[in-house]
Amino acid sequence: MEELIREKGTPLYLQLADELRKQIEEGILKEDERIPTEKELSDRYNVSRITVRKALEILTDEDLLTRKQGVGTFVTGKKLVRNLNTLMSFSQNCIQNGEKPGTKFLSADIVTAMPSDVKYLHIQKGEKIIRIRRLRYCNDVPVMLEENHFPRKFAFLLSEDLNQPLFSTLAAHNVILKTGTKKIGICYATKEEAKELGVKENEALLYMWDTCADADGNPVYYGKNIINADRYTYILQLDVDEGAK
Amino acid sequence: MEELIREKGTPLYLQLADELRKQIEEGILKEDERIPTEKELSDRYNVSRITVRKALEILTDEDLLTRKQGVGTFVTGKKLVRNLNTLMSFSQNCIQNGEKPGTKFLSADIVTAMPSDVKYLHIQKGEKIIRIRRLRYCNDVPVMLEENHFPRKFAFLLSEDLNQPLFSTLAAHNVILKTGTKKIGICYATKEEAKELGVKENEALLYMWDTCADADGNPVYYGKNIINADRYTYILQLDVDEGAK
Repeated sequence: MEELIREKGTPLYLQLADELRKQIEEGILKEDERIPTEKELSDRYNVSRITVRKALEILTDEDLLTRKQGVGTFVTGKKLVRNLNTLMSFSQNCIQNGEKPGTKFLSADIVTAMPSDVKYLHIQKGEKIIRIRRLRYCNDVPVMLEENHFPRKFAFLLSEDLNQPLFSTLAAHNVILKTGTKKIGICYATKEEAKELGVKENEALLYMWDTCADADGNPVYYGKNIINADRYTYILQLDVDEGAK
Repeated sequence: MEELIREKGTPLYLQLADELRKQIEEGILKEDERIPTEKELSDRYNVSRITVRKALEILTDEDLLTRKQGVGTFVTGKKLVRNLNTLMSFSQNCIQNGEKPGTKFLSADIVTAMPSDVKYLHIQKGEKIIRIRRLRYCNDVPVMLEENHFPRKFAFLLSEDLNQPLFSTLAAHNVILKTGTKKIGICYATKEEAKELGVKENEALLYMWDTCADADGNPVYYGKNIINADRYTYILQLDVDEGAK
């Protein structure tokens, strides 16, 4: 049993949180490591389970711990931060953050448009589209499965190196992206998605729909991104809309 | 067995997706209703389970169906859309979308600052803060659990009607919010969160950290929002950052 050095006047759960935070900061509890159970912590520090629970809640709020459904509580791994304020490519964003972007090309094919393609790419039912699937890495960690759909006139992409940044490849063909829309929700990893992203099947992931248009408002692509939220955080900096005060 | 009217040249899974989409649009399959299992659909329409799976994937991609881990596949309920582009209050956003905002005040208290409060509210360790918890509704549906922490000088809020929009209450006290930061991730519903939001315990939810400052850059609040992603979608409209092309 490792007793806490009990400070008078500071609630025990804060003391336990401080102790565990210290262990995380000093690397005694390591990134992605599963921490002991509530029962084990309660025995080890000679505190009630309610105290343990409150301490773990604090550290979870601070994003130092991550609770996973039915699995346990883990020390949060290093998260890569993506700023959503501007329409910046994945690679550009990584570089701006001082991180190393990476891409693994998975597949490219010509397929019949789905209804969502018809809607977002402004094409006719039954038309063919270009579908490109890539796995995106940040500092060699797989963080996002990206599937982009392009109108068929973008078939020139199929002869390009799709491990390279797509925005640059498009720019080399005089396709300049100007505006975009993103929509964020939750999905659950399929077997294949789990394998590519190194997570468990059915684990909750962020789902981001993504559309992009050129300066004339013509759709360039419609995409779906499956994101490992344990590894990748989206942030936004906002200003008050003057009209909405 | 309800046979599909088989069209020559159109793959069966697209025909099945069209048929199910029609049933959703016509309300034969109702919002939030669990659809038949793959096996049942396979038997009913006399198609293989692979065909069923491909059809369901299409409708899931279109966000017409929602797959829930270990529970089944459901017709997606009406989603409320929040535009994240500007720092707009929940109430303002609902009204702009033609929806009815609602608030249920849950609790307000004075508590000792957590380390995250110290960090985001620029206060000292051990100081007290004001903690306000509210459940937010859109068209009478609970969509978000909101917990906001304010520096102690905002204690005047405790004598206000906290069912009213907070931005307006603050404005009446000459506190004008100017800038903010949001961070988006995933969390799993605790028992209490599940009860308030009407979801299952441990169901995946969106987690949004939220900070807000006034025109002088002084922190006004630091908040945590737990969001039912089945009910509420975040969208963003973006322009290319000229410097980042």
